[in-house]
Amino acid sequence: MTPIPASQLLEALQWRYATKVFDPNKKIPADTWDALEESLVLTPSSYGLQPWKFLVITASALRESLLPHAYRQRQVADCSHLVVMTVKSKICEADIDRFMHRIAEVRGGTPDALAGFKRLVLGDVVHGERGQWAREWAIRQAYIALGQFMAACALLGVDTCPMEGFVEEKFDEVLGLAEHGLTTAVLCPAGYRLETDRYAGLPKVRFKPEDMIERR
Amino acid sequence: MTPIPASQLLEALQWRYATKVFDPNKKIPADTWDALEESLVLTPSSYGLQPWKFLVITASALRESLLPHAYRQRQVADCSHLVVMTVKSKICEADIDRFMHRIAEVRGGTPDALAGFKRLVLGDVVHGERGQWAREWAIRQAYIALGQFMAACALLGVDTCPMEGFVEEKFDEVLGLAEHGLTTAVLCPAGYRLETDRYAGLPKVRFKPEDMIERR
Repeated sequence: MTPIPASQLLEALQWRYATKVFDPNKKIPADTWDALEESLVLTPSSYGLQPWKFLVITASALRESLLPHAYRQRQVADCSHLVVMTVKSKICEADIDRFMHRIAEVRGGTPDALAGFKRLVLGDVVHGERGQWAREWAIRQAYIALGQFMAACALLGVDTCPMEGFVEEKFDEVLGLAEHGLTTAVLCPAGYRLETDRYAGLPKVRFKPEDMIERR
Repeated sequence: MTPIPASQLLEALQWRYATKVFDPNKKIPADTWDALEESLVLTPSSYGLQPWKFLVITASALRESLLPHAYRQRQVADCSHLVVMTVKSKICEADIDRFMHRIAEVRGGTPDALAGFKRLVLGDVVHGERGQWAREWAIRQAYIALGQFMAACALLGVDTCPMEGFVEEKFDEVLGLAEHGLTTAVLCPAGYRLETDRYAGLPKVRFKPEDMIERR
């Protein structure tokens, strides 16, 4: 693995900002988008459980119908690709089994050999203490995806805007998520900034490093 | 901003894995670590509020004293830099004011000019519906940091291991967080894998892209 220069990483993270105005005419090229989807697939999650599904919405009509439920923030309609990060609203044994089967499929062996691991995960996020708030736990995992996805986009020169401002129930309803046991966690429109977006030129506001990081 | 090739991004994300065994003798060089700290500082958050503090623990004695409260997972003690991501356990008006002052400091102008923005944030994460569960909301933000940090590390060739397995109260106690209104959200040891870590060589398990991503 060849690391990138640290300066290039920081340049991309400096360049990134929460895009307020996307250029509705600029679309992410297919090969770039394919890579970004692959980066989503590669997102790490606790136990590797991947308690999510990512909806990628490009259809204008669907986006327009979501708009009123996102406080009419135009990014939803004007971006190139709208990613709706959804998670399982409940984690059940079938989810764990599906994961164990996938491990066996990818790494070889039988799900039976994974009985100990299955017990561990089951005893935590299904029957254990975390099972009490598994939906919230799954949403936390979605925020890992959000963090990695925004960084990945920036490195490929793609703009994003993380969005918590939406009516969850309405998104779930319009997207028909409940019947799949899913709920909307967070949104991330991706595309290209309109050159006139005044937020692009504003200095980034961060607390001083000494107020944010403490070495011990 | 010069994007990196998509192949390089994917190579780094493929290379990354949850490191089980760190080489206790390999330390992250100072310039690389400085860049990673800067990437932490640049982490996006809702409203830009940055409701966190990142503790970077390198002192052996402190790490050893945290070990029993992390189920003795050796990564805590054997990594090069242990990042403890902490968040405000409560968001109060003073936090919003501090942020408004920082905006005015960085971008010019007076905090008074930001009165409308302050009202918006205050009415949401302090007095609004999100104020009811602001601690959890802050933890979600920390997971953005976690996601971006793991990606940043991978791109610079640094190994990480995201860790939820720790006793929050004990971490808070040992690190003296309560008096600063902070609580432990998640851990991320960083450093270099031991070449013999058998997990490094295992194929990455992800659900099939068609099961994880749905284009609409």
